[in-house]
Amino acid sequence: MYKRESMPVRNGGSMSQKRLVVVGGNAAGLAAASQARRRNPDLSILVLEQSPFISFSACGFPYFLSGDIPDFNSLFIRSPEFFRRERKIEVLTRHRVVSLDPSAHLVTAHDQEKGEERTFDYERLILATGARALSGDFLKGSLPGIFAIRRAENALALVGFLLARKPSRALVVGGSLLGLEMAEGLRKRGMEVTLAERSTRLLPEFSEPFGEEVKKEMMRRGIQITFSSAVSSFTGEPESSLREAVLEDGRRLPCDLVVLALGVAPDADLAQKAGIALGVGEVVATDRFLRTSASHIYAAGDCAALNNLVSGRETYFPRGTSANRSGRAAGEAAAGGEADFPGVARTMAARFFDLTVARTGLDEKEARDFTSSLKVTDSRSRSRAGYFPGSEPVFTRVLFDGKSGLLLGAEMMGREGIATRINTYAAALSARMTVDDLSRLDLAYSPPLSPLWDPVLQSSGLAALEK
Amino acid sequence: MYKRESMPVRNGGSMSQKRLVVVGGNAAGLAAASQARRRNPDLSILVLEQSPFISFSACGFPYFLSGDIPDFNSLFIRSPEFFRRERKIEVLTRHRVVSLDPSAHLVTAHDQEKGEERTFDYERLILATGARALSGDFLKGSLPGIFAIRRAENALALVGFLLARKPSRALVVGGSLLGLEMAEGLRKRGMEVTLAERSTRLLPEFSEPFGEEVKKEMMRRGIQITFSSAVSSFTGEPESSLREAVLEDGRRLPCDLVVLALGVAPDADLAQKAGIALGVGEVVATDRFLRTSASHIYAAGDCAALNNLVSGRETYFPRGTSANRSGRAAGEAAAGGEADFPGVARTMAARFFDLTVARTGLDEKEARDFTSSLKVTDSRSRSRAGYFPGSEPVFTRVLFDGKSGLLLGAEMMGREGIATRINTYAAALSARMTVDDLSRLDLAYSPPLSPLWDPVLQSSGLAALEK
Repeated sequence: MYKRESMPVRNGGSMSQKRLVVVGGNAAGLAAASQARRRNPDLSILVLEQSPFISFSACGFPYFLSGDIPDFNSLFIRSPEFFRRERKIEVLTRHRVVSLDPSAHLVTAHDQEKGEERTFDYERLILATGARALSGDFLKGSLPGIFAIRRAENALALVGFLLARKPSRALVVGGSLLGLEMAEGLRKRGMEVTLAERSTRLLPEFSEPFGEEVKKEMMRRGIQITFSSAVSSFTGEPESSLREAVLEDGRRLPCDLVVLALGVAPDADLAQKAGIALGVGEVVATDRFLRTSASHIYAAGDCAALNNLVSGRETYFPRGTSANRSGRAAGEAAAGGEADFPGVARTMAARFFDLTVARTGLDEKEARDFTSSLKVTDSRSRSRAGYFPGSEPVFTRVLFDGKSGLLLGAEMMGREGIATRINTYAAALSARMTVDDLSRLDLAYSPPLSPLWDPVLQSSGLAALEK
Repeated sequence: MYKRESMPVRNGGSMSQKRLVVVGGNAAGLAAASQARRRNPDLSILVLEQSPFISFSACGFPYFLSGDIPDFNSLFIRSPEFFRRERKIEVLTRHRVVSLDPSAHLVTAHDQEKGEERTFDYERLILATGARALSGDFLKGSLPGIFAIRRAENALALVGFLLARKPSRALVVGGSLLGLEMAEGLRKRGMEVTLAERSTRLLPEFSEPFGEEVKKEMMRRGIQITFSSAVSSFTGEPESSLREAVLEDGRRLPCDLVVLALGVAPDADLAQKAGIALGVGEVVATDRFLRTSASHIYAAGDCAALNNLVSGRETYFPRGTSANRSGRAAGEAAAGGEADFPGVARTMAARFFDLTVARTGLDEKEARDFTSSLKVTDSRSRSRAGYFPGSEPVFTRVLFDGKSGLLLGAEMMGREGIATRINTYAAALSARMTVDDLSRLDLAYSPPLSPLWDPVLQSSGLAALEK
């Protein structure tokens, strides 16, 4: 038996038919709810969030560790009260959704405060269940000080541990973007930091020269890095202290804090139990309006498969931008809007100490799947006029179809103006520009701000010559 | 009687028929010659330059004045020897072209070193005669210390005056972008600087709020500004010293150095005398391959009318980017290439002390001529995540067609990431994107580098809502 509830809504009447329920108070869920509100001022909108926290900027957490951001609270961007007051969106925290009945249009949540189940009807529902950090079996033992960071709860637990135990030797497991950001944050906090990467290179999100430069930057800043062997186990005193990590090749790394950065997996259990179709990698399958296989149910964010706007193929890209963008699009569609979701270019940027890397579009493997005439052109340019003090080298790799010249992807690296310059490449991908088109753009120039031929023009122009 | 000359060329034979002559060793002329060489390794290429100098970066000169650039020589980017050795391009300096005979395919230059005339035949010719700084009648008197800056000669004369006379009170006449840059350069050099603008506002290249912010920035840095009255005359001791400027309203401004920034006019005398058609404002008329009305003669750079790629109308935009881009395109066309010149978006950026402004596309007046349903949307965003230290406000003005949503132009202002962000707008103009398209781009995000919704997304998204 469950209590069937309708939320109070404006205008009275049989409004339960017009309720939108969003499962997940993360970036995707809140972007969806907000966009639905913009589209339809009269809709009743309910967000169900299992944790006590919403709107946590996980992307900002490494910069709290580093000390760049002094106030942990500033990482919580919006409160439930903000949504209730400013956007007339009801947010119920500590409500873990336990079942979903697509045919009856009912969703049931466990209210963890009251210890009871509550069932809500909906006209449309958006799944924004997110992703969870992979942790192998490392969190199953009873050794303290091992963390995998994804949600606010994880971050808070780590912060609590730092305050209580004052660890001095950190081990980060995994050399992906997140692992590198965490390593930097802990290093800047003053800890001895080792990063253990099982493969032979860092930063798998980028091509090899980028990982190589980042490695140099990290090592120059005092971060130790081990390659080519995975962590197999940890030793220490159960419930008391951590001593060391043991690698598969037998090496032992002393540590009293471990951050696991082993990747993430979509939280698609709810969808799966409800009979909703999953795609490759157990990700909730969606169409271009972010509709799932179940009528009136949408999915967005880190639980959803998204369209790669360059290749037109399904992709999984659990990042803040795609969460917000797909959430907004799902909210738009669920509230009756007509715009589809154009998809993701997998654009991203990250700064490691003073070195910034940025990318957009297909990587080399994807590009080779997409075309048999891939060309890859590397070029070196400057961030400002060469004669202007502070001018920094910019390295650009451009991927394009050697026959048509169609741009397929780009990566950039340097110490100035990288993350904003990659956006011109991202726009070019959406517009299906060739490298010729790009090389002929009219871009801004001023000696302290850009060379006469901006790195975007220089790199695409060189690519156009190699066509 | 003239000596008819053929330059030595590779491969021997009757090569005079394959000679390209470029009139002007400025940015446009050298870009043209270089691109022609890339396109055709066998072409004989001759550049005729009237002054002793080529390849001078006038854009960099204010930063030499300011002390940002310590070495004046670094403003001369390439030497004649570089072109001869590396690109097999013959550059003759101190050769002032005195006549051009399009029907006979002959061009005559006065060799100022030898004091004789030399005539060259050509298969194709590119006019890159540039522009000259307007100076009213102010340079005609015999008062010292009055300069108008355009070419290397002007800059050298000013530098010589600074060294010899050590002036301490500078007056800059004209509040356009160049005038503002010169005022900043002289101020940073330690001089008392007054800027006299005849109208009521600064920075006519941008809309009013931008000039207003720049005014505040300039005044905060100790630059005096007078508005609403033009300079009518100067007083002082002829051949000896300058005393003051007299404004039309009677005010008197003491000064011992004057920099005129009154705008520029195309140097189209040679073209006109040769019977080549001029367009509005006495600019050499060109088609989309930068061909003039005379067969086999092209024009590029600051002497040429260029296509506005947004409106499709003729425009005059004497800037470094358009000089280089149109020069390159003219060289391509003259050497037998097939690519046309896409035109200019009038993209530009400038930094005044710590404040950067950037623009692209139509201004409000042009946009109103172009569409009867113009919309202008202002928005405020941040350069980084709001919670990240160093995050700076970004002000964006977007011009678009209220019916179709077609982007027509954009202006941005702030203290971080402005000049590179405007380029995404510039790319969108070339791709004929709507503000909706723009607001749905997948742009880079990382807390220290950009907010989740980049200013480009935020400003175009707001515009899309107001459609």
